[in-house]
Amino acid sequence: MGSLPLDASSRRPLNPEAFAGESRSVVDFLAEYYRDVGKYPVRAADLEPGLLRKLLPDAAPELGEPLEDVLEDVRRDILPGLTHWQSPSFFAYFPMNASAAGFAGEMLSAGLNVVPFVWAASPAAAELEGVVMDWMGRLLGLPQRLLFSGGGGGVLQGSTCEAVVCTLAAARDRALARLGHAAIMKLVVYASDQTHVTFQKGARLVGIPPSNFRVVPTSAASGYGLAADAVRAAVDRDVARGLVPLYLCATVGTTGLGAVDPVRELGEEARRHGMWLHVDAAYAGSAAICPEFQGYLDGAELADSVSMNPHKWFLTNSDCCCLWVASPRALTSALSTDPEYLKNVGTDGTGNPAAIDYKDWQISLSRRFRAIKLWVVLRRYGAVGLRAHIRRHVAAAKWFERTVAADERFEVVAPRKFSLVCFRLRASFAGDADDVNRELLAAVNASGRAFMTHFVVDGKFVIRLAVGGAMTEMQHVMDVWELLQDKAEEVLQRYRLEALNLQFRGS
Amino acid sequence: MGSLPLDASSRRPLNPEAFAGESRSVVDFLAEYYRDVGKYPVRAADLEPGLLRKLLPDAAPELGEPLEDVLEDVRRDILPGLTHWQSPSFFAYFPMNASAAGFAGEMLSAGLNVVPFVWAASPAAAELEGVVMDWMGRLLGLPQRLLFSGGGGGVLQGSTCEAVVCTLAAARDRALARLGHAAIMKLVVYASDQTHVTFQKGARLVGIPPSNFRVVPTSAASGYGLAADAVRAAVDRDVARGLVPLYLCATVGTTGLGAVDPVRELGEEARRHGMWLHVDAAYAGSAAICPEFQGYLDGAELADSVSMNPHKWFLTNSDCCCLWVASPRALTSALSTDPEYLKNVGTDGTGNPAAIDYKDWQISLSRRFRAIKLWVVLRRYGAVGLRAHIRRHVAAAKWFERTVAADERFEVVAPRKFSLVCFRLRASFAGDADDVNRELLAAVNASGRAFMTHFVVDGKFVIRLAVGGAMTEMQHVMDVWELLQDKAEEVLQRYRLEALNLQFRGS
Repeated sequence: MGSLPLDASSRRPLNPEAFAGESRSVVDFLAEYYRDVGKYPVRAADLEPGLLRKLLPDAAPELGEPLEDVLEDVRRDILPGLTHWQSPSFFAYFPMNASAAGFAGEMLSAGLNVVPFVWAASPAAAELEGVVMDWMGRLLGLPQRLLFSGGGGGVLQGSTCEAVVCTLAAARDRALARLGHAAIMKLVVYASDQTHVTFQKGARLVGIPPSNFRVVPTSAASGYGLAADAVRAAVDRDVARGLVPLYLCATVGTTGLGAVDPVRELGEEARRHGMWLHVDAAYAGSAAICPEFQGYLDGAELADSVSMNPHKWFLTNSDCCCLWVASPRALTSALSTDPEYLKNVGTDGTGNPAAIDYKDWQISLSRRFRAIKLWVVLRRYGAVGLRAHIRRHVAAAKWFERTVAADERFEVVAPRKFSLVCFRLRASFAGDADDVNRELLAAVNASGRAFMTHFVVDGKFVIRLAVGGAMTEMQHVMDVWELLQDKAEEVLQRYRLEALNLQFRGS
Repeated sequence: MGSLPLDASSRRPLNPEAFAGESRSVVDFLAEYYRDVGKYPVRAADLEPGLLRKLLPDAAPELGEPLEDVLEDVRRDILPGLTHWQSPSFFAYFPMNASAAGFAGEMLSAGLNVVPFVWAASPAAAELEGVVMDWMGRLLGLPQRLLFSGGGGGVLQGSTCEAVVCTLAAARDRALARLGHAAIMKLVVYASDQTHVTFQKGARLVGIPPSNFRVVPTSAASGYGLAADAVRAAVDRDVARGLVPLYLCATVGTTGLGAVDPVRELGEEARRHGMWLHVDAAYAGSAAICPEFQGYLDGAELADSVSMNPHKWFLTNSDCCCLWVASPRALTSALSTDPEYLKNVGTDGTGNPAAIDYKDWQISLSRRFRAIKLWVVLRRYGAVGLRAHIRRHVAAAKWFERTVAADERFEVVAPRKFSLVCFRLRASFAGDADDVNRELLAAVNASGRAFMTHFVVDGKFVIRLAVGGAMTEMQHVMDVWELLQDKAEEVLQRYRLEALNLQFRGS
C-alpha cells in the first residue's frame, strides 16, 4: 500500500498494485500472528466488558487512514481482547480450525467476490459447488442417494443452524401440503437431551409450537446416545394425542460429550412414522473420511438429510457447512422464489438440473463462493493428508484419555469416540466435586496457557478437552495435562486446608 | 508455498512461512485477475450447464497437490465460467463490490478465524461489532434509538434474508406471547408488489400462512412507492376478518426499480396497528451516508428495525448485512438459547449489556468476525472517501439517465433516485416493444462487453443499469451506452427488415 495517496485509494479501491501491496501487508501481519499466537493468553480472560468501546472513538473517521495505522490498532487494541481460536492450546467448544489452504480458498472466494445465487450469476461457481459436494459425500462414505450423481444433492451453507432451518421448513411444508397450514400446531420434532440446541431454536424459528419439541432423555447406559425405543414411546404418546411426528434428529458426535446416536435404528423409527430424519455430524463428520469412523454413519441411507461442518475440524476457515438432501425437490419446494428480476436471462429456462439456482437451497438469496474454499482444501491436502490430520488429533485425544484414566485423582466421564475427552476430578478427594472441578477449570483458563469449556451431564460438572486446532500437536496436549495436574494440586490443596481449618475450629 | 513438501504442508497447515508464501501467490493471482477482469466476457454466456462437472474428476484427489496447480486450474477451468461481478462493466442485479480494504478486512476475519458467538468466545470481536454498528448507524443518520448508545443496537448478519427472518420471528413471538401460538394462523405481513421476494420467503419460513402475505399494488403515480392509504385499506379488511396485522416492510431503493416507500407515513400506519415496521435499505442504504440522500430514511425513528448491506455498494466484500433494532430484547426473546456448554465461564453472568452474546441476535450459533471487515473499510476510506465513491456512481447514473432520456428511441421507465437506471426502447419503433427490448438485452449480454438484467413493471419489459462496481468509472458507463446504441440499431434494423419482408410478401 502506502504508495497511493489516501484519496486515490478510495477513488480506485481495486487498483491492482495497491491491492497487492496492502494484501501482502495483511499476509505478513497474519504470518506474524501465527508465529506468536502461542504466546497470547488463549482466552481473553481479563477484558472488562465495554473496555474496547472506551478505547475506540464514537464515530467513523472522516478521512481515510493508512493501513499501517489500522493494523497497528488491531495489534494494540483488538488482539489482546480476542480469545485465540487458532492457538495450539485452544481446547474449548469445538475447534474452528484454519489452514493455509482454507485461507487461500477464502481469499479466492472473497477476491473473486461472485454471487452464485442463480446459475447464470456465476455458472462455474454453482457447478463447482455441486462437484465439491459430491466429492465430500464420497469421502464420508455417504450413500449415493444423497449425492447429485444419485438423485440427491448438496449445498454449502454457513452453519448447521441454517441447514436445520432449511430441512425443518422442507419437512414442515411437505406435511402441511397434505394437512393444511393449521396443522402446524400438531407437528412434533424429536431430539435427545444431548442434541444441539440449534434444533430447538430452528424448530421454533419455523413456527413449530415450542411445546411440540420433545427432548428425549439419554443415559450413561447408551453412552448418551438416543435410544430408538425411547423415541418410539414418545412418538406413540404424541400420535395417541392426535399429534403428527414430523422430524427426528440423530447426532453423530454430540456437542457436550461427543456421543453418537444409532442412525440406522433411528432411521427405521423415522420411516415408520413418515418423519424426516436429519443426521447432524457437524463436528464428527470430518472423522468419517477415515474408514475406521464411517461405521457411525451406518444407516445414513435412511436419512432425508445429513450435515457436517468443514469449518470445525476440516482445515476450512469459517464459514462452511455441508448439507446433503435425498430430495432436492423437498428442499426447493419450501425455499424457492422466482421473481422476475432473477429469471435466468440467457439460459433456456428448462430447469436443467445441472444449472442449479442455489438460492432455492438455502435461507438467503445472496451467498458466497464457498465451494472454491473447500475445493482448495481438498486439492491441497488430499484425502490422505486430511485423514492424517484427523488421526493425529484422535491419537492425541486417546493419549489424554488413557493418561487421565490412569490417574486415580481423575475420571473419564463418557467414553471418547473422536477427539473430545470429557473428564473431571473425582468426587472423593475434597469438597463438592462440582465446585472443585469448576475451580479447576477456572484456574486453568485464568492461567492463559489453555482454554477449555465445560458441560453438565447427569447433574455433574464435566471438563471438556476438544483437540482439533491446526497447530495443536501432541506436545500441547501433554502440556495441558501438566497444567491440569498443577492446578488440580493447587485447588485440592486449598480444599484440604479449608477442611483442616474447619476441623481445627471445630475441635 | 513450494518450499515445504506436500506431506509437511498438511502436517503443519498453519506453518507461518508456508502460509505467507502461499497467501502471497494468491494475492498475486488476484491482482492479475483485477488487471485483466475487463477483458473477460462479463457474463459467462456460453457455458453449457454441466460443462465444469465434465472437466473435473469425480472424486477428491488422494494426494495433496501444489498450490500452483490449483491456481492454474482456477485460471483455466473456473474463471472462464464465472460471471465477473468485479468487472467494471457489470451492471446487473445490484453491485457486490469488493475493495482492497474490504479484502484486507476479510483476510483478517478469515485469518484470525475467531467465533464471537458468545462474548467470552472473543470479547474484542463482539465489542468491535457493537462499536462499528453504532458508527454505521451514525453515518446513515439513523435515529439514536436504533443505536446501542440509545438503547437499541445492531448486529452484522450475512444477508437481508437472515435479518428479515430474525425480525419476523421477533415480531411473531411478541404477538404470540400475547395471543397464544395458535394465533400464528391469523398473523398478516404487508409488503408492496415491489418489495423484495425475501420477505415473502421469510414470512413463509417463520410459519406465517402463505395466504396471509399481502402484496399491496403500487403504481407509476407514486413512483412505485407503497402508499400508506393502500396499506391502511388492506389492514382494515384484514382486521374486519379477525386477522392480526403483524409486520410491514418499507423499502428504500427497491430491487426492480430503485423506488422508495414513504417510511414516515408507513411508520405511522404501523404504529396505529401495533405492527413491526422493518425498513429494508439493502442497496440504497449506502447512499444515506451522503446528506443529500438521508431524507429517504426520514421517519426511521418509527421503525422497529432497519437493514442495509455494506456488501452491495459499500466496498465491503461479501458477506455483510447491517441490522439495527430498537428493542434488542424483542430480538433476543425470539432467538436466544442458553445451553450449558455456552454459559460464559469466566464472566460474571450478570448479563452486562456490553458483553453481548451475538448468537442470540441471529439465526445461527456460529458466526464470522465480520465487524473487523467493515471497520477496516470505514477506517481506510473514511466517511469522505466513501461519500465520494457513492457520488461518483450516482453522477455516472445521472449522466446515463439524461442521455437515455435525450434519445428519442429510448425512454426512462421510472425516475432514477440512486445509481440504478431503468429504461427501454420505445414501443413505437418496431415490433412488440417487449420482444425488442428482450432481444436488445440479450444482444448486449451476449457481446460479453457488459452485463445487465431486466425487470417487468406494469407488464413492460425494462432493462436495468445498476452502477456500483468498484472499478466502474464514467467511461464504462459511456461505453455501455455506445454498446446499447449499436445493438439497438442491429435489433431495430432486423425488425424493420422483417416488417418490410412481410409487407413485400403481403403485396
